Amino acid sequence: MKLTILFGGASFEHEISIVSAITIKEKLSEFDLTFIFCDQNHIFYLVEASKMRAKTFSSFEYKKFPQLSISNGCFIEKKLFGANEHRGMILNLIHGADGEDGTIASLLDFFGIKYIGPRADASVFSFDKRYTKMLCSARGVKCLDFEELNSKEHKNIKLAYPIIVKPSRLGSSIGVSVVNDESELDYALDVAFEFDKSVLVEPFIKGVKEYNLAGFSADGKCYFSIVEEPQKGEFLDFEKKYMDFSRSSQVLKADISKELEQKLKTNFEKIYKNLFEGALIRCDFFVIDGEVYLNEINPIPGSMANYLFEDFKSSIKLLASSISDARRIKVNYDYIHSISKAKGK
Amino acid sequence: MKLTILFGGASFEHEISIVSAITIKEKLSEFDLTFIFCDQNHIFYLVEASKMRAKTFSSFEYKKFPQLSISNGCFIEKKLFGANEHRGMILNLIHGADGEDGTIASLLDFFGIKYIGPRADASVFSFDKRYTKMLCSARGVKCLDFEELNSKEHKNIKLAYPIIVKPSRLGSSIGVSVVNDESELDYALDVAFEFDKSVLVEPFIKGVKEYNLAGFSADGKCYFSIVEEPQKGEFLDFEKKYMDFSRSSQVLKADISKELEQKLKTNFEKIYKNLFEGALIRCDFFVIDGEVYLNEINPIPGSMANYLFEDFKSSIKLLASSISDARRIKVNYDYIHSISKAKGK
Repeated sequence: MKLTILFGGASFEHEISIVSAITIKEKLSEFDLTFIFCDQNHIFYLVEASKMRAKTFSSFEYKKFPQLSISNGCFIEKKLFGANEHRGMILNLIHGADGEDGTIASLLDFFGIKYIGPRADASVFSFDKRYTKMLCSARGVKCLDFEELNSKEHKNIKLAYPIIVKPSRLGSSIGVSVVNDESELDYALDVAFEFDKSVLVEPFIKGVKEYNLAGFSADGKCYFSIVEEPQKGEFLDFEKKYMDFSRSSQVLKADISKELEQKLKTNFEKIYKNLFEGALIRCDFFVIDGEVYLNEINPIPGSMANYLFEDFKSSIKLLASSISDARRIKVNYDYIHSISKAKGK
Repeated sequence: MKLTILFGGASFEHEISIVSAITIKEKLSEFDLTFIFCDQNHIFYLVEASKMRAKTFSSFEYKKFPQLSISNGCFIEKKLFGANEHRGMILNLIHGADGEDGTIASLLDFFGIKYIGPRADASVFSFDKRYTKMLCSARGVKCLDFEELNSKEHKNIKLAYPIIVKPSRLGSSIGVSVVNDESELDYALDVAFEFDKSVLVEPFIKGVKEYNLAGFSADGKCYFSIVEEPQKGEFLDFEKKYMDFSRSSQVLKADISKELEQKLKTNFEKIYKNLFEGALIRCDFFVIDGEVYLNEINPIPGSMANYLFEDFKSSIKLLASSISDARRIKVNYDYIHSISKAKGK
């Protein structure tokens, strides 16, 4: 199967997107893969598969590769005479800004290029944690209480300590701190406001049970990964997550009851349905007193959560086959014609 | 002031975007205006100002104009030798799909082009009426009850007749019907499902008071238009709205109490703040028993609701001056460097 991996982006998660792409190359080695890198200046490069290693990017060696521009239906590589067109299904593997905020989705949609990944509306709901809370509330999925802060000065937090402080719009634990009492709050807010002008505060529940579940839909049916109980320190910090994005060996199923597994799947479907079609997403849940709470949605999980799928290759194939051609609205000029007629000109 | 009007789009509202652009040309005649047309195939054309009339588009004469491609920081017109770069602030005047669903916003953001118009997240919340309801609920703004239908078969509607049936994702009254009793339901659903696979049903309140209020924010402050009580038949149908988009003469203030005017403004601000910055939007409200309900958000109102502003030109200037430069996240390769070091390679 032909597939183009689009990675990089102007994002705090730029580097982990590179790591993800390298991991995917290994996991989908039997596919006919093309690699398109979006650098921090939003210039696209066609990267040779044999050069898919971290150093190619950190050393800026990628700049030697051909530049691509995006156009209707394809990416174009200009040649001295003529041009090569790169067509075919894209896998959007840009984590964080650009990839997960709906920008790349809109770009590909605008140019009529088919892709695996969240559409723009799904991205908006998963990228900003405030909107994820709205989605939960509208769809009957529990999530933790929260308060929003819009400035460091505003500190009359009603939640009891310990609390967790996070920028509204970043993934991969960037800017996130656990705050045990008020003395630690200032620093945590300084860190969080470095990354966003909106910061959320949630209760921090020490030792809470966490379960991750990935999945996608095809032919109107949900296909699920195994449920994983992620290993954790106090919480996953960026460096640990970075390593996480290069995971490629299958993990063990969490030791949970059939009933809990079903509850997690039901909550996953409530979030996914009529919104995330076209994407393979990972939902991270908390379980508190037997109740399932959504923690976050990863609409482009690190290395596509390959390690959670028993047959990752077939999953990607099935998902790709479910994505229909972009349909553009056809315009006619009926109203202008009828009005011109009425005006007699 | 230099300003580029971007209009057209692959949208059911393509024609009214043309009408809007022609009206804006007249209203902002003292500006240094450039016109970029996005046709239904998503090809951009640089249209001569003197050719800004409906027939240029309905006759496909626009195809004679130079094509533009979008690139970092500008639209580019290729010449036999070299190229012309068209830089400067865009006014996104594409109504409906493309313009109001966040696609064009993301495109311009990706390429770092400044624009007047809703950002992608604001677009998602205003374009899909289901998400507008979520926003209202999260921000303490009243809106009408509703039920969502996902297929024509599903007809156990609990709301009492008369009801109004509308596609979730279209503006300009397209596909909208008032249904007085069950015998009229089938046809109304057929019409609505022509345009969307999700359809909303709301109570229809005959003779309800309607008020429109436009506004924008600059320097952290909201600037409001006058409040209009729109004239209406049973409800605005597409043809009437079409004419509405070419409105250019200032309307009369609605005859309402200071108290109601303030209530409308307060509700407008609740919707606008921390979401619609950069856009001039029009909120259409109902007033029922003295209570204000949001009916819909027009994030790119027809001809920018120029007829509601006492000084439209200054309003556009003020809004444009409030839009800050796009800032792209700077990438460093610290993690890759540190990991390469740790690995000793």
